[in-house]
Amino acid sequence: MGMVGGGKDAFIGAIHRIAANMDGMIELVCGALSINPDVAKDSAKSLFLPESRTYLTYEEMIKAEAALPADQRMDFVTIVTPNFAHFAPAMMALEHGFHVVIEKPITFSLDEAKQLQQKVAETGLLLCLTHTYSGYPMVKQAKQMVKENAFGKIRKVVVEYPQGWLSKLSEREGNAQAAWRTDPKRSGKAGSMGDIGTHAAHLAEYITGLKITQLCADLNIMVPGRMLDDDGNVLLRFDNGAAGVLIASQIAAGEENNLRIKVYGEKGGIEWSQQEPNTLWVKWLDQPMQVLRAGSNYGAHLSSFATHNARTPGGHPEGYLEAFGNIYRNFALTLSARIAGTSPSAEAMDFPGVEDGIRGMAFIDNVVASAGMDTKWKTFEV
Amino acid sequence: MGMVGGGKDAFIGAIHRIAANMDGMIELVCGALSINPDVAKDSAKSLFLPESRTYLTYEEMIKAEAALPADQRMDFVTIVTPNFAHFAPAMMALEHGFHVVIEKPITFSLDEAKQLQQKVAETGLLLCLTHTYSGYPMVKQAKQMVKENAFGKIRKVVVEYPQGWLSKLSEREGNAQAAWRTDPKRSGKAGSMGDIGTHAAHLAEYITGLKITQLCADLNIMVPGRMLDDDGNVLLRFDNGAAGVLIASQIAAGEENNLRIKVYGEKGGIEWSQQEPNTLWVKWLDQPMQVLRAGSNYGAHLSSFATHNARTPGGHPEGYLEAFGNIYRNFALTLSARIAGTSPSAEAMDFPGVEDGIRGMAFIDNVVASAGMDTKWKTFEV
Amino acid sequence: MGMVGGGKDAFIGAIHRIAANMDGMIELVCGALSINPDVAKDSAKSLFLPESRTYLTYEEMIKAEAALPADQRMDFVTIVTPNFAHFAPAMMALEHGFHVVIEKPITFSLDEAKQLQQKVAETGLLLCLTHTYSGYPMVKQAKQMVKENAFGKIRKVVVEYPQGWLSKLSEREGNAQAAWRTDPKRSGKAGSMGDIGTHAAHLAEYITGLKITQLCADLNIMVPGRMLDDDGNVLLRFDNGAAGVLIASQIAAGEENNLRIKVYGEKGGIEWSQQEPNTLWVKWLDQPMQVLRAGSNYGAHLSSFATHNARTPGGHPEGYLEAFGNIYRNFALTLSARIAGTSPSAEAMDFPGVEDGIRGMAFIDNVVASAGMDTKWKTFEV
Amino acid sequence: MGMVGGGKDAFIGAIHRIAANMDGMIELVCGALSINPDVAKDSAKSLFLPESRTYLTYEEMIKAEAALPADQRMDFVTIVTPNFAHFAPAMMALEHGFHVVIEKPITFSLDEAKQLQQKVAETGLLLCLTHTYSGYPMVKQAKQMVKENAFGKIRKVVVEYPQGWLSKLSEREGNAQAAWRTDPKRSGKAGSMGDIGTHAAHLAEYITGLKITQLCADLNIMVPGRMLDDDGNVLLRFDNGAAGVLIASQIAAGEENNLRIKVYGEKGGIEWSQQEPNTLWVKWLDQPMQVLRAGSNYGAHLSSFATHNARTPGGHPEGYLEAFGNIYRNFALTLSARIAGTSPSAEAMDFPGVEDGIRGMAFIDNVVASAGMDTKWKTFEV
Repeated sequence: MGMVGGGKDAFIGAIHRIAANMDGMIELVCGALSINPDVAKDSAKSLFLPESRTYLTYEEMIKAEAALPADQRMDFVTIVTPNFAHFAPAMMALEHGFHVVIEKPITFSLDEAKQLQQKVAETGLLLCLTHTYSGYPMVKQAKQMVKENAFGKIRKVVVEYPQGWLSKLSEREGNAQAAWRTDPKRSGKAGSMGDIGTHAAHLAEYITGLKITQLCADLNIMVPGRMLDDDGNVLLRFDNGAAGVLIASQIAAGEENNLRIKVYGEKGGIEWSQQEPNTLWVKWLDQPMQVLRAGSNYGAHLSSFATHNARTPGGHPEGYLEAFGNIYRNFALTLSARIAGTSPSAEAMDFPGVEDGIRGMAFIDNVVASAGMDTKWKTFEV
Repeated sequence: MGMVGGGKDAFIGAIHRIAANMDGMIELVCGALSINPDVAKDSAKSLFLPESRTYLTYEEMIKAEAALPADQRMDFVTIVTPNFAHFAPAMMALEHGFHVVIEKPITFSLDEAKQLQQKVAETGLLLCLTHTYSGYPMVKQAKQMVKENAFGKIRKVVVEYPQGWLSKLSEREGNAQAAWRTDPKRSGKAGSMGDIGTHAAHLAEYITGLKITQLCADLNIMVPGRMLDDDGNVLLRFDNGAAGVLIASQIAAGEENNLRIKVYGEKGGIEWSQQEPNTLWVKWLDQPMQVLRAGSNYGAHLSSFATHNARTPGGHPEGYLEAFGNIYRNFALTLSARIAGTSPSAEAMDFPGVEDGIRGMAFIDNVVASAGMDTKWKTFEV
Repeated sequence: MGMVGGGKDAFIGAIHRIAANMDGMIELVCGALSINPDVAKDSAKSLFLPESRTYLTYEEMIKAEAALPADQRMDFVTIVTPNFAHFAPAMMALEHGFHVVIEKPITFSLDEAKQLQQKVAETGLLLCLTHTYSGYPMVKQAKQMVKENAFGKIRKVVVEYPQGWLSKLSEREGNAQAAWRTDPKRSGKAGSMGDIGTHAAHLAEYITGLKITQLCADLNIMVPGRMLDDDGNVLLRFDNGAAGVLIASQIAAGEENNLRIKVYGEKGGIEWSQQEPNTLWVKWLDQPMQVLRAGSNYGAHLSSFATHNARTPGGHPEGYLEAFGNIYRNFALTLSARIAGTSPSAEAMDFPGVEDGIRGMAFIDNVVASAGMDTKWKTFEV
Repeated sequence: MGMVGGGKDAFIGAIHRIAANMDGMIELVCGALSINPDVAKDSAKSLFLPESRTYLTYEEMIKAEAALPADQRMDFVTIVTPNFAHFAPAMMALEHGFHVVIEKPITFSLDEAKQLQQKVAETGLLLCLTHTYSGYPMVKQAKQMVKENAFGKIRKVVVEYPQGWLSKLSEREGNAQAAWRTDPKRSGKAGSMGDIGTHAAHLAEYITGLKITQLCADLNIMVPGRMLDDDGNVLLRFDNGAAGVLIASQIAAGEENNLRIKVYGEKGGIEWSQQEPNTLWVKWLDQPMQVLRAGSNYGAHLSSFATHNARTPGGHPEGYLEAFGNIYRNFALTLSARIAGTSPSAEAMDFPGVEDGIRGMAFIDNVVASAGMDTKWKTFEV
């Protein structure tokens, strides 16, 4: 693995490294860790990278690695830069034959995402998008239960993603994370909706297997002086006629990272909360609620997708890093199978990719467009 | 207390009687308990009412009681009939000098509600509307904390009221509750939005002290064959600029009566869940979350409104019936004070009345109108 | 109902009145509410009792009421005085033909309890002991599931009852409740073990249907200057070989009234917490945990004992007062049936009585004796 | 890192590898992964170990590695074999100058543990004992709050560790984990008390900083045919006079790994549950309960020990593997500092060591001895 971005003090780069390390399947072999050369060098050193594979730009890294013998070069590139700097290294990596992992949202614009999609199709390379929350075992379980029609037709979806960390104008108070995430030049045309609304939308579509077809958005800037939405509420309609609500807010003071989803079908439904992720509440119309737990198989009540993505027995809680690690592990399993010429399992292939990225960018475009309209419903266009 | 409606097998009439009985301040002395004479008589008998005060119609009851000497007649009328049959007995009671308690929604139409408002203003009589959920001590606490500006300006409100009991077409399967509540002739122009959406809207306005000024509604009939909305999602705007979401659904399979509200201000906010009502989660931007508990005063952390409405020390859970009882008790305390010529306390006077009823009927009108519009925002008109 | 004790400012007397009022089946008709004549009179007046039936002593009350015509006198006596003053009025009431309700613990000493047992046997009158926690619907459900062998042989019971309200020497700081409850002359030979340990022991035996046969107690006085135990931990053995632990403490700072029980059998078990009483957690060895909820019958998953003791549908939380009310209601139903010459239902007859009182007093005796012994196990003697 | 034990299908070896990998500070460089040569080779291969450093016995590994140049040999040995096979490789590693990490309990007998203690003292090498639960950030927080006297004198400790996985005689049904853990020849003189009771005892002493001075144990074999205790309940006394209860059971059907602890002091206390480990409930006598959350610093409410041991911001749940990883990371930081000749931080040095191992072995000895005695209290001897 070669990493682009993720130098010292970057949040998500460190997370990617822990996730990739976790299962002993992936090794960081090179990096262009910062646009600041000193930071890039220091960061690489602290990560035990050799100087020879410490690069100052992604262009340099991709070219140099591509020039190495096949058995010595990195297998894939991980891109953990701010949104505006995803596309160029991803495209260049694909063009040089490297598989790619990208932090979400996939790109700065929908158009860029479509170009990546085209390139992936041409090259046949793998592109993995780290929509972390789809990596949790109980999210997998929920998806499989819906897929197997346990609840009948899905009628309603409520997904909420409240955070409180942008309750003040932190981007003017030296918070680097806040600074780039609220800056339209680096983050894109949406603030909270791009940063966390896309996670919520992905989770809703991932679990239900449905597609959003219409939406009606109310985006707000609640903190005076901010440049992008920090709060939003969206009505949804799905392709099977289900109704939905999506809430994403970064001014929900006192909330940490409280992603929650409730899905209701004709016969029952599920509730899942990211902050207590090992539990899946399964509600039934005519039976008592059940509490499914990651790692506790109770004689095959859990789907193979749930058990494949747990490392420990029930009651040994896994969390965000393991969910992230599951995406890397599944990507690595799929990649290894490809290298070995074998077929990866369905469970291994279940990681987000370029299509999810396209949906995410389209979500941003549609939600921002809807917010600017007087008409209630906007058709979801891709 | 004389009761109109609430015969055998009626749900809410029995609840009103328990609530009124609870504190030993109110006695049921007469009733016109059913439009079916046999049911009316049997019900009265089982409630130990004397035959002389067992009436077959509300007209008969009001006239007969009004003809009794002042110290022998009922003090007030409680109306627990289906929505369409609220207005006439309420108006007649007021005209005959009786105070009135009405189950929500106050009337069948906004116009009727305005007529009652006018009559209440003319007569100076009391009208109490049993928006139960505002009777919980921790709801009172939340209201007072917002009022005292503990959280700064309120920015966001999310109120959800999911139930699952109408997930099937139960109105065609002999469920009497379902039958009238889904029948536009008896229930009014809204289904779930009238039945439980009004509770949610009341709770949001009650706690925040804000008024809804605009809304954007998506109302759905999810169960084929149903005549009124059984699911709805509404975007809200409040008079201080806060944004909101209101969700009311009776097809949320597996949910019981899961009213929840989250309110976020600049510095923190609250979360309250009706199914665990003795707890108020208080979230802070810069401090750990606190768990306030009904009945546990911790040296005056709770407002007088919270302590006034609890009967037991912390850890002795009170519930729905006590919340309901609080409305009756506060009404009775206010009425007693009036009779005694004294001033009731602010805590005693804190029960919902005709103004809340007007807001509720207007909510129904506006939400139904919005649902039929292509325009996103509808101004909330009263 | 005639009440002995329970004047102004008494805690438990007010609770009894709310519980008795709740269902409209019981009326307070007379009382000897305090040993202080002024308090007795004032209290009676505020409860709307006529002067003619406002008594200054229980002797006066019992004699006067017994002298009334049968259809005018009280049906039963409720005794809500401190422990030392339970026996005399109870015995006198029984001797004069009145049924009796007594707050727990039944008497001051085991010997007194045995005398009452003898008198109840002789007279055939009813004696109801208000072990409140056995009145909760989900406790009834737990009991029935154990009884129907849902979990196989019971192997282990853990019951905890922590409170924090005696963390300071409050009995010296003007707290009247603390004063009598920590005074061996008024409370008996045990402090916390008598006040709340008896509830815990009763709950364990009630749910499991087992009897404690041996115990090993560690009783402590944690607050210097206190005269009775304020903390205790007890190992238990039951008559089927199950092991158990009982914890009762009133110096668990920060706890309210956190009675909890866990019962484990061969195939699963239950967990119940009094502070969230409408939920019963049912754990299974080979199935996901289920969450049973009071009032939610899910097509007959709940036993008739659970449904009989709920007044509202699922999601309308009932609490401590309703559990207390269930004991009064069941007592009243049994009494009414007796008066009517009919057979009360099994559900109605399920309220604690003199046998439970004997067990409770024996628990106090045995636990205090064990605490003073160097030997590990003490046989539970009655 | 060189690993002894932990071949394919071993549970805890895989956990150790994930924990050691997580932070990119430790690399597995060699192993004697199984006493079965084929398993040892296959396991090593699947872990990408070179054949040259794939050993068939720990003796071979230690000797061969010791013979390598200092900058090429492993830095430390990790021992993840069953209990009976801890001592010999640990002693040999120390004798050859290697630091050691050992899965708990440290040895098979207290005497062995004392020998290791002596050898550690002689050599000055590091010995780390993986009492995982002390690695959680909220456990660290609890410890620091007690240490800083936030709660006054500690009066009571209740620690419970219920599991259900030995509810059947699984050791006779092909469950390898069950087989060795219930076998006195491989596990030691205690079953559940050794396997999980030691964790509970360690957690209690770790958080409170107190030492158990007396105990009174009831150990049971609930599943007929089993050879070691599968359930136990223990009364405790601590060196400051606090009372305690320790419960460990592996026949608590339906429980996963539900370690919980409650600590009560004069002014408040804490509650922590391993299955929801990112939350620390802080209870106060005179203030509302607070909910402290790992990773959420709220302007310095958390101790440096809590923040040092979290990798992610609040709301990104960390779990068992991260807690385990914290022990490895702190060990590695301490080792690195030693290698670099610097002083490790107090936070880094906070990992369990040989003294904790001695306490654990003494706990097993004392609890088993007490269980066999008729006398109530046994003095805790080391």
